[in-house]
Order: sequence, then C-alpha cells, then structure tokens
Amino acid sequence: MAVLGTAAVEVLIPVAALVGIAFALLQWYVVARVPVPSHAGEDGGGGGNKNVREEEEHVEEDGMDYLLVEARCAEIQRAISVGATSFLLTEYKYLAVFTAAFAVVIFVFLGSAQRFSARPGPCAYDPSRECRPALANAAFSAVAFLLGAATSVLSGYLGMRVATFANARTALEARHGVGRAFAAAFRSGAAMGFLLASSALLVLYAAVNLFGLYYGDDWGGLYESITGYGLGGSSVALFGRVGGGIYTKAADVGADLVGKVERNIPEDDPRNPAVIADNVGDNVGDIAGMGSDLFGSYAESSCAALFVASISSFGAEHNLTAMMYPLLISAVGLLVCAITTVVATDVTEVKGSDEVGPALKRQILISTVLMTAGIAAVTFLALPPSFTLFDFGNDKHVKNWHLFICVSAGLWAGLVIGYVTEYFTSNAYGPVQAVARSCRTGAATNVIFGLAVGYKSVIVPIVAIAAAIYASFRLAAMYGIALAALGMLSTIATGLAIDAYGPISDNAGGIAEMAGMPHRVRERTDALDAAGNTTAAIGKGFAIGSAALVSLALFGAYVSRAGITAVDVLSPRVFVGLLLGAMLPYWFSAMTMRSVGSAALRMVEEVRRQFDTIPGLAEGLAVPDYATCVRISTDASLKKMMAPGALVMFSPLVAGTLFGVETLAGLLAGALVSGVQVAISASNSGGAWDNAKKYIEAGLSEEARSLGPKGSEAHKAAVIGDTIGDPLKDTSGPSLNILIKLMAVESLVFAPFFAAHGGIIFDHL
Amino acid sequence: MAVLGTAAVEVLIPVAALVGIAFALLQWYVVARVPVPSHAGEDGGGGGNKNVREEEEHVEEDGMDYLLVEARCAEIQRAISVGATSFLLTEYKYLAVFTAAFAVVIFVFLGSAQRFSARPGPCAYDPSRECRPALANAAFSAVAFLLGAATSVLSGYLGMRVATFANARTALEARHGVGRAFAAAFRSGAAMGFLLASSALLVLYAAVNLFGLYYGDDWGGLYESITGYGLGGSSVALFGRVGGGIYTKAADVGADLVGKVERNIPEDDPRNPAVIADNVGDNVGDIAGMGSDLFGSYAESSCAALFVASISSFGAEHNLTAMMYPLLISAVGLLVCAITTVVATDVTEVKGSDEVGPALKRQILISTVLMTAGIAAVTFLALPPSFTLFDFGNDKHVKNWHLFICVSAGLWAGLVIGYVTEYFTSNAYGPVQAVARSCRTGAATNVIFGLAVGYKSVIVPIVAIAAAIYASFRLAAMYGIALAALGMLSTIATGLAIDAYGPISDNAGGIAEMAGMPHRVRERTDALDAAGNTTAAIGKGFAIGSAALVSLALFGAYVSRAGITAVDVLSPRVFVGLLLGAMLPYWFSAMTMRSVGSAALRMVEEVRRQFDTIPGLAEGLAVPDYATCVRISTDASLKKMMAPGALVMFSPLVAGTLFGVETLAGLLAGALVSGVQVAISASNSGGAWDNAKKYIEAGLSEEARSLGPKGSEAHKAAVIGDTIGDPLKDTSGPSLNILIKLMAVESLVFAPFFAAHGGIIFDHL
Repeated sequence: MAVLGTAAVEVLIPVAALVGIAFALLQWYVVARVPVPSHAGEDGGGGGNKNVREEEEHVEEDGMDYLLVEARCAEIQRAISVGATSFLLTEYKYLAVFTAAFAVVIFVFLGSAQRFSARPGPCAYDPSRECRPALANAAFSAVAFLLGAATSVLSGYLGMRVATFANARTALEARHGVGRAFAAAFRSGAAMGFLLASSALLVLYAAVNLFGLYYGDDWGGLYESITGYGLGGSSVALFGRVGGGIYTKAADVGADLVGKVERNIPEDDPRNPAVIADNVGDNVGDIAGMGSDLFGSYAESSCAALFVASISSFGAEHNLTAMMYPLLISAVGLLVCAITTVVATDVTEVKGSDEVGPALKRQILISTVLMTAGIAAVTFLALPPSFTLFDFGNDKHVKNWHLFICVSAGLWAGLVIGYVTEYFTSNAYGPVQAVARSCRTGAATNVIFGLAVGYKSVIVPIVAIAAAIYASFRLAAMYGIALAALGMLSTIATGLAIDAYGPISDNAGGIAEMAGMPHRVRERTDALDAAGNTTAAIGKGFAIGSAALVSLALFGAYVSRAGITAVDVLSPRVFVGLLLGAMLPYWFSAMTMRSVGSAALRMVEEVRRQFDTIPGLAEGLAVPDYATCVRISTDASLKKMMAPGALVMFSPLVAGTLFGVETLAGLLAGALVSGVQVAISASNSGGAWDNAKKYIEAGLSEEARSLGPKGSEAHKAAVIGDTIGDPLKDTSGPSLNILIKLMAVESLVFAPFFAAHGGIIFDHL
Repeated sequence: MAVLGTAAVEVLIPVAALVGIAFALLQWYVVARVPVPSHAGEDGGGGGNKNVREEEEHVEEDGMDYLLVEARCAEIQRAISVGATSFLLTEYKYLAVFTAAFAVVIFVFLGSAQRFSARPGPCAYDPSRECRPALANAAFSAVAFLLGAATSVLSGYLGMRVATFANARTALEARHGVGRAFAAAFRSGAAMGFLLASSALLVLYAAVNLFGLYYGDDWGGLYESITGYGLGGSSVALFGRVGGGIYTKAADVGADLVGKVERNIPEDDPRNPAVIADNVGDNVGDIAGMGSDLFGSYAESSCAALFVASISSFGAEHNLTAMMYPLLISAVGLLVCAITTVVATDVTEVKGSDEVGPALKRQILISTVLMTAGIAAVTFLALPPSFTLFDFGNDKHVKNWHLFICVSAGLWAGLVIGYVTEYFTSNAYGPVQAVARSCRTGAATNVIFGLAVGYKSVIVPIVAIAAAIYASFRLAAMYGIALAALGMLSTIATGLAIDAYGPISDNAGGIAEMAGMPHRVRERTDALDAAGNTTAAIGKGFAIGSAALVSLALFGAYVSRAGITAVDVLSPRVFVGLLLGAMLPYWFSAMTMRSVGSAALRMVEEVRRQFDTIPGLAEGLAVPDYATCVRISTDASLKKMMAPGALVMFSPLVAGTLFGVETLAGLLAGALVSGVQVAISASNSGGAWDNAKKYIEAGLSEEARSLGPKGSEAHKAAVIGDTIGDPLKDTSGPSLNILIKLMAVESLVFAPFFAAHGGIIFDHL
C-alpha cells in the first residue's frame, strides 16, 4: 500500500512535535540572554516611576543612564506581566466553571441520545457491526472537551508569558539597532508559535492513542469522541478572544480618546493612566486570544479530517498510516516552519527599518513553497494510490494526488489571502493612501472610505476561498475541505510567529516610551510595529480563511453524523435557518461593539477624572493610578464576554433541539457565508484606518507630509478612524471566526442527540 | 367554485386602479389650491436672489412682506424643479440606451434557448401539450421588459413632479400652522403613492390582457413573458436608486462638510453653493429612486405570484378568478389605502408638532388592520375552497384560508418591521439616545455605538421575515412566499404616501430657510421633517422586507423554471455560489460608498473654492454658483452608477452562463440572506445617527440640552456620524434591496437560456 509503515508514523509525529518544542525552547533561550534586571520594581507597583519626567530631562541622548533605563524597563515589564497574568487567571477561573458545566451538558445530552444505555450498540455508519455504547462516547467526548479546553488555556497562557518576557528585551535590544530588536521580537514570536503548534499536535496525538486503548478498532466512536477536543479548544478561544478583545480595546480606545485627542500627548505616554491597561490588553487580547483562536482552528480542522477519514475507507480498512495523514501534514509543517524560521534568524539579516516588512513577507512565501514540497512527500509516502472516501452516504473514488491538490489549494489560498490583505491594509499601496487622503475633508469621509476599502477587500479572499472549496470539495468531498483547512494551517508555527511578533513590538515600543528611552529607539520600535500592523492583518486574514474552511468541513461532518442527505435551500426549514444564521454575526457584533464602546466610555471618564484630580499629572510630576484602569478593563471584559459567548454556545443547541437538524444545517451555512464577509471587512477596514493614521504620522511622502504632522486636522480625523477600527479589527472581526467554527463543531459534537431528539417545535407544527 | 365571477374580476381590477388615479388627482387638486406665483423667477436662474440677506434684515417677523416671500418660494421651487427634471431627463437618456440594448440581449438569449425556432413546441411544464414558440416568448419578454422600464420611468418622474410641486406649497402652508403644512405634505405624498400604485396595477392588467390576445390559453408562456415587466421595472429602479443616491448624498455630504462643520452656517442656508443640489437630490434620490424601487418590488411580486399560479392548478384549469387573486389583492389594497388616507386628511386633524409622528404611525396601523379584512374578503370570494399548487415538481394541496394566512403574514411582518425600525431610529427611544450620549466622548464612540445599533436592529426584522417565510412556505410553497410579499406591499399606496411625505417636508424646510421665512415657520417644517426621518427609515424597512420576500419568491420561480429539483448546499457548485453571492452586497457597497465619498470630496472642494473666491458670499452679499454644484452631482452620479449597475446586471448572466443553474441558485440565495442584513443595518445605523443629531439639536430633554447646543463638541461628533450614515442609509442600503430582487428576477427571465446552455465552465471541469 503506502511506503510509510505504521511504526514510522508512530515515531514521526511525536518526534516532530518534540523537535518543535525543543526549537521553541532554543529560541526562548536565545532571547533570554538579553539581561533584564530581575530585582527591579520590588519597591512595589509603579513607585519607582515617580520622578520619571524630571530625570529624563537631565539625561543626554548619548550619555543616558542605562542602568536606570534597564531598571525602568524591568519594572514596566513586571507591571504588564502581573496585570496580564492576573487577568488571565481570573478569566480562567470563570472559564473553569463554564467548562465544567458544559462538560456535564455534553455528557447528559449525548448520553440521553441512547437513553444512557451502557450496552454496545450498532455502529452509526455500519449497523451490521457492534460499536462502543453511546454512554462511553458521551463520557469520552466530555473528557476530550476538557482536554481541548485545557490545552487552549495552556496555549493562551504560554503565549502571554513568552510575549511579556520578550517585550522589554526587544525594547532593550532596539538600543543596538533595528536588526537586533527584530531578531528578539521574531524569535519570541517563534518560541510562542512552535510551543503552541507542537503541544497541540502532541496532545491530540496522545489523546488519540489513549482513547484508542479503550476504543480498539471502533474508530468511528474514537474519532467522534475526539471532536470534543476541537469544541473545548474553540470554546475557550471564544471567551479568550471576546474577553481579551474587549479588554484591550476598552483600554486602547479609552487611552487614545483622552490622551491623543483631548490632551495631545503621545501614544504610550506614562502620564496616561490607561497606558498599562493598554499594554496588558495587547498581551491578553492579541497574544493569548489569538493563540487560543488558532489553536482552536488547528484542533478543529484536525478533528474534522480525522472524523471524516474514520468513516471512509481508511477507517473501515484500519489503515493507520493513511488515517494519520492529517497529523503527518502538521508534523511536516513543524519541520518546514523550523527551517523557515532559521532563514529569518540566522541566514538573512535585517539591517534597516525598511527591511522588516519584506523579511516577514518572505517568511510566508518560503514556508508556503517548502510546505508544498512537504505535502507532496507526505501524500505519496503515506497514502495508497487510490481509495474511497465517504461522500454523504455515497462512496467517492479518490487518487492520492487529489489529496495533494486539496491540501495545497488551502495552503496557497492562504498565501493569496495574505497578500491581498497586505495590499488593502499596508500604507505602501493605493487603498490606504486613498483613505489617508480622504482625511483632508474630515473624519466622515475617512470613515466612508475606510468602510469602502473593507468591503472591497472581501472580494479576492472570497474568490480564493471559493476556488479552494470547489477544487477540494469536487476532488475529495468533505475530507478535501478539511484537508484544505489543514493546508492553510500547516504553516501555523510561522504564522503565529509573525502574528505574535506584532504585539510584542507594539509592547516594546510602549516600554521604550514609558522608560524614557531616546527618540531613535522609539523610531526603531515604531518601524517594527508598523510592519507588525500589516502582518497582524495578514494573520487575521489567515485565521478567517482557515475558519471558513474548517467550518465547512465541520458542517459536512455534522451533516453526515446527523444523517441528513441533503441541505436543500428549497425546504422552508433550511431556508429559515440560512436567513437566521446569516443574522447571527450581526447580533454578535452588536454585542461586542457595544461592549467595547461602553467600557471605553467608562475608561475615558476615569482617565479624565485622573487628569482633572491628580495634581501635576499632566506635567509628568505625579504618577497616575494605573490599577484602576486595569480594573475597569478587567471588570468590563469579564462581564461583557458572557452574553456574546452565550449567544454562540446556545444558538446551535436551541436551533438543534427546538427546530431540528435541517434548520441547524441552514443556520450553520448562513452564519458561515455571512460571517466570513463581516469578519474580513471589519478586520481590513480597521487595518486600513490604523495604517492610514501611521502613514500620516510617518510623513515619508510628499502627500503624507501635506496631511500631517501629528495634531493636524487631517491627523485628528485619521485618529478617529483608527479608534473606530479598533473594536472592528480586534474584537468583533476576529471573534466572528470563532463564532462560525464553534457553532459548527458544537453541532457536530451534539449531532447524535439532535438526530435522536431534535426538532420538537417544528415536529408539532 | 368561487363566489366572484370572471366578469366581476375583469371589472373590479381596472375600476379600482381608476379610482386610485382619481383619488390621486383629487389630492393633487386640493394641494394645487395653495397659490404659488407662477411668473416668478423669469429673470433667469437665481438672479432674483441677489439681495436676499439684506432685505431679510428689514423685515419684521409679523410684518413680513408675504408677496416677496411667495415670489422667492416660487423661484426656489422652480430652481429645484428645473434641476431635478434636467437630471432625470439626462439619466433617462442613458437608461433608454441601456434598456434598448438589454431588450435585445433578452431577445437574443431567450431566442437562442431553442435556436430561434418560430415553431410551437411542447410546453415547459406539460410536454404533452403544445405551447407558443420560444421565439414568441423571447419577443414578448423583451416587450414586457420595455413596458416595465417605461412604467418605472413614469413612476419616478411623476413622483418627482408631484414632490417639486408640493414642496413650496408645504412651506407656504407652514405659515398658517403645522396642521395645514402636514396636510399639504401628506396629500402630496398620497397623490404620488396612489398615482404610482394605480398605474402599476393598470399597466400590468392591461399587459396581461393584451398579451393574452396572442397567447390564448397558453398561460405558462403568457406569465413567463410577463415577468419581463418586473425585470424592466427593477432595472430602471436600480439605476434610479444608485444614481439618485449618489447625487443626493454627494450634495448632502459636501454641503454639510463645508457648511455645518467648517463654516458653521445652518442647514439649507442659501449661502451654501451646494444647497440647491442637495434639495434637488432629495427629489431625484429619495422620491424618484424610491418610487421606482417600490414599483419594482410591486411589479416583481405580482409577476412572481402570477408565474407560480400559472403553473399550478389555477393555470391548468384556467380559473381566471383565482389566477387574478394577486391583482385582486392589490386592487382591494388601493381602496383600503384610500379610506386610510381620508382618516388622516379629513377625519382627524394634526394640531401640534407632537401629533405628526403618531398620525403617520396610525396610518400604518389602520391600513394594516383594514387590509386584513380586505384580504379575508378577497380570499373567500375569489378562491375555491381547496386546490393544488406547484411545489418544485410535486403537487401541494392547499385550502383557501391558507392563502389568507400567507398574505396576512407578509402584511403583519411589515408592521413589525416598521415598528421595530421606529424603535431603533426614533429619538424617542433608548437606542438613539444612547448613540447621542456617546457623542460626549467624540465621533469615534458615536460611530461605534451607531454601528452597534444598526447591527442590533437586524434581529427582530429578520425573525419576523423568517416567521412569515416559514408560515407561507409551509402552507403554500413558493406561491405563499409571493403572496406574503404582495401582502407586505398591499398597502403600498399608504406606504409611499408616508415615505414621500418625508422628502417633501425636508424640501419645504429648505425652501423656508432659503426664502427667509420667519424662524417659527422653520420650526414647524423641522418638526415635520423629524417625523419624516423616522418614517423614511420605516419605509426603507418595508422596502427591504418586501424585497427579501419578493426575491425568495422569484428565486423559487427561477428554480422551477430552470428545472432544478433541489438546491443542495452540500453540492460544491451550490456552496460556491452561496459564498460568492453573500460577497456581492459587499462588492456593491464598496463601489457605491466610494462613489459617494469621492463625489463628496469634489463637492467639498467646489464649495470651499466658492467661499474662498466669491467676495461677500460668506456674508450673504453675493449669490453662490449653484449650477456648478448641480453639475458636479449630475456628472458624478451618471458616471458612477454604471459600475455597480453593471455588477448587478451581469452577475446572474455570468454565473448562469459560465457556472450553470445550480451555482446561480446558490448565488441568489447567498446574496439574499447576506444582502438583507447589510441593507437593514446600513439603513438603521444611518437613521440612528441622523436622529441622534436631531435629538441634540432639538434639545427637548435635560440630557439633550447638556449635549448641545448646535456647535458644541458633542454636536460636531453627531454631525460626523450623520454624514457617515448618509451614504449608508440613502445610497448603499436601499440599493441593496434592488440588488437582491433584480438578480432574482433576471435569473427567472433568463432561466430558459441557462437551463438549455448554462454552465459551460463547470461542465468542462
């Protein structure tokens, strides 16, 4: 059959994961060699900051007191780290309660599908054989759910630790040049990316093997239970993204509205009371939230692929090598990404500010090209030349090179999405420049143009996703879609490295400003940050694109498991679901936007209050009360993440239970096709506004200088656009990925229940 | 069978239409009794305005020179009327070329479906019988298309004439009190509404009878050809809405950005060079565009209902009375609306400003309640107790009271949509007040809250539409959906009256300001206008809701005609269509938003140029060059309506020809479920911003006064939000209705071609 034997597979996957973890630790070790005094700040939260502004006046650019600067950096880093850790721990406490409760829900619902029978029953897809009891599936699904949730928590937490460990070091390295700062930030991002991708693979692999001890050759039951892993991962990711998104944007918007617009003080100025909350937010929102999000996508696409494979000939014939194809792709992806990372850190060198963006873009291209070869190798080594796949009740005859095309289609669609996103959100191109130009006539035209850019940026990514879907759907049905999603996520380690690099640079800039480092250091971190802005948009593009593919794969798996043979738009049940599903992203966005808005209002009031009541604050003679702002963000995000979270978690349960499997299928399809557009346009409008503002601030062209400088009317208009974009691009937009994925995976997990007992309302109409 | 005989039907429909026309003329006659000097302004465009500001200073509030004011009113009215007429005539010239060309396209495509055979062939739905040749259907479809286009042009043009005839009269009546002004504006709106609804019914009825002379008992061919009428109506409506929307918002945004924001002069101040263009825009966009739009919806829902009926037992059994049920509903609707109008104009009286809004809302409620009785009467008089309907190849057994429920479901869903829209866009309720409050922290929070309100406002209307769809789909398949659409539009005469009332009052306010009428007159027109703002949002809600139902009905008819038995989301062809279809509203909005933005930029430059270069303009000592601003709006709208228009017209043709009937079905469903959300949220965000601004300006509560007055920071933030909302609510949002309807009706008309020759790309993959 295939060249690669079972033993080789059993070795390759865990070894690749361990190599990935070792690689991550190596990167961390290199970054850790930058010394940051550890005893600093022991006099207690922010106290040492007291005379910051006065002292700075005495320091010459070249003769500055480095010891003092390092001590300040360490202190600020500690404040950010403490804030982020305490928020995440509080958030995880809430999540622990939710997760435990939901695990019970899973057990009860799935158990009740067969009336809690502990006796083996006929298999779902082959009633002639006997499979493990539904009660076991219920229990293992709940366990898998808890495992996924725990891994997701771990991913978010580790990412945050790496990032808050790296931010001050990046700032300190920036004293020695942009190249060293870039290396520090990028290595840290890589440390996070590899830790996360490797542990996700390892845990999943371990779970499959451990569950296998019980399930034996009942692979259908095994992989059905394993999908709980994806659900757990995405549930935590949902709350992480929403909570973190509200946290960071409440602080950011609040800090900007008073600091930049009213008081005319620079970003990250230590006089601004919300500045620590803002920097904490970058770590809990952009780092921990995004880490959980991409982990969730990865877990779900793997689970979807495994599930579909288990009900195909791979599963029926117990072909372990072929069955492990999805995990092998991820394993090879880790190795490819390690090589790609070495190119950035050791082969090439970033010498100037203008080389940062291209270096990051090169990473995406290199990893894509190498990965294409990797996919080819795995495909021809691990798969038999031809086989049959499950296609909604029919058999589909597939050749191994078909699967190569499926995985590659996803991979390259990701590249297209990345490059198009760059075009629409980087200030090197026309769209952002047109948005900047429109600031000449004020904030209103800026917003109109920015919305138009966001809408327009949807076109090509959707066409790319549609092409990938058509090709892989046509060639290998739902398994093809799951593989396309995995293909897009196969270079996740590099993607995460680039993604995490952004907030780390952003934080480094904040620390440089707060620690009173010279202007040229801040200029270097600004250059890193500007490139990070675009890569953040690219990362969001990947996240959305992969979410669309993952959701479709999960949707297919759900439809199979629920025993539906067609999802016909001409059925009123389906159409109503479609229409309501397309509405959900709006409902969800209404909640998250409003939450950020009202939390920001409270933040603005607090910041204003401090400026009005603390004597000497505006002049830098007094220390603001950072802790109150941190508390406002924390309270707002924990309280306000409940309702949108509940909307996403309960919609499939309500639709499936009350209206049945067909309406739920319509709901999922509607949420998918509508949500992906809202998410892309929101992310890119936000990115365009952000970089239009940066374009005016940087003043690198004749036109940009005519719009600026900071504080001009056009710049003020640009700041308003940027502020509006904040919740769109960092709260609503990226959370929508999770909305569509999570609803799909939840439907899949609960499919046995819905198939048995769903639709109690329509059945009586 | 049914109580109502064929002869009664043949009499009732045309008589009701003629009664409607007579009623419209009566209203017009009453309005016309307000004298406006006809000889004014004969010295040529705006010349008599020269010393306006100086003279006004001399006039005492109570002792003002009424003859002079009347002369000025007449002159301004003439300027608006000339501008609007000249724009529409230019627009219609372009449309004539397009319409003629597209009629040829229809003929060629449909003719080629059977290779231009002029011989009779087997009927599409009953191959055992012989039907008229495909070539005849092609020719009659093209003729019906031209007829629909012509009626749509007539609707838009007549509406504009009525409105420009009424605006000065409303302003003059406002001198005598708010009640008389209200009566003038409302009667004028009614004149337009009845003219339009009656002529639409009459032309359709005439066309059915004339075509019938040729078709004889081939009802399938007859009603297939008649759908061209709907396509013609909506094609013209598309360009009318887009062109008019760009025209009016370029002028409005341009006038506001310089006038209100930079120069701090009031709205409609005659010193603003863009003020005439702004007022012209109200008439060509809000009046002519909306008239064409709702005419299109009406024509399409009638065509869809007739087409589906013709392939059901009504058609097979040649039951003329039952066949004419859709037209009977509309005929009774005209009579119901006439009674409703009399309640507003003669039974009750508006005495104060606060009675205007309730009086308009009462109109909707009364017409809905009366119409429910009307539907019941028609249903039980015209329909046999039970019959069978076509249900995608199957027969569906239906009772007559089922159809009563279908029509009523649409009617009452419209009421729900209206009331919910009012809640989210009127400043009497929480949402708009929260938006206004968020202006305290600037434009950014205002925009964030406004977007959130728009998103949230989608929920209930979508649930109402979904409920109506489920009920009518379940009871009477696609015929039920078409009837629900007709039900929502059955009170179209009243809906249009209320809708047209808004821009007429808006114009009246403009004329009062420009003619230098005393402040109290302006206060009265402002009160009329504020109520009109909310009713405009309600009207848009109706338009969107009915568009959703109409599109679904047309979608069903298309699917039937294309010979598809299922639109299965699990087919890659369908899913890809669904995803791309959901993207189209974004592409379309990107174009229209950008067009308004760039046209507004040019307008701003021109207005600034005039203020900078015309000596004495700012002081009111010189007359601005209104004509250049009118030209900028005209040029921009004519040039920029092409691309979005082409996108909508060509998408179904390209999808159907290249990718086939299944992908096109997916495309239609995707555009429908996504577009309706974008349209509702855009309209309501815009409405909320507009009224948040008005809330601050009116200062009627403690809170509102603390945010104001005009010119305060909060008010400036509110103006920015209002300006952003302008293109959302008056260009993009309402055009999207037409996008979804038009694509559906176009697909239906071209279905025979697509079924025969479509899908050339996928067939080779």
